[in-house]
Amino acid sequence: MCEANAYLERDGKEELILESVDIIEPEDGKVFIRNIFGEQKVLNGRIKKISLIDHKILLEEIG
Amino acid sequence: MCEANAYLERDGKEELILESVDIIEPEDGKVFIRNIFGEQKVLNGRIKKISLIDHKILLEEIG
Repeated sequence: MCEANAYLERDGKEELILESVDIIEPEDGKVFIRNIFGEQKVLNGRIKKISLIDHKILLEEIG
Repeated sequence: MCEANAYLERDGKEELILESVDIIEPEDGKVFIRNIFGEQKVLNGRIKKISLIDHKILLEEIG
């Protein structure tokens, strides 16, 4: 499967916030993510880096 | 393989701009993308939506 795990970078650490993410939609300082199980989250932040080969979505808080 | 194809939405159409993308990094109104072959592009724009299940990265121009 080709989903990726989403991590939030905070205080220099990477915290896993959602596994098996399918959909990523950044909008107005927020990022909406939804996984293959229908779980979804909205984070205040931005996408820092995505590596599909590593199955990794790295988000960071703004400000 | 779990890469995705990157499309740029322009004038209501989706134009394929890079296949087999691995890395996506948005920064300051630009989006850097690199594929598994080492090809890379920098677009003036933003990520509109990514669906990993569909292997699709949709970018849009800003403004």
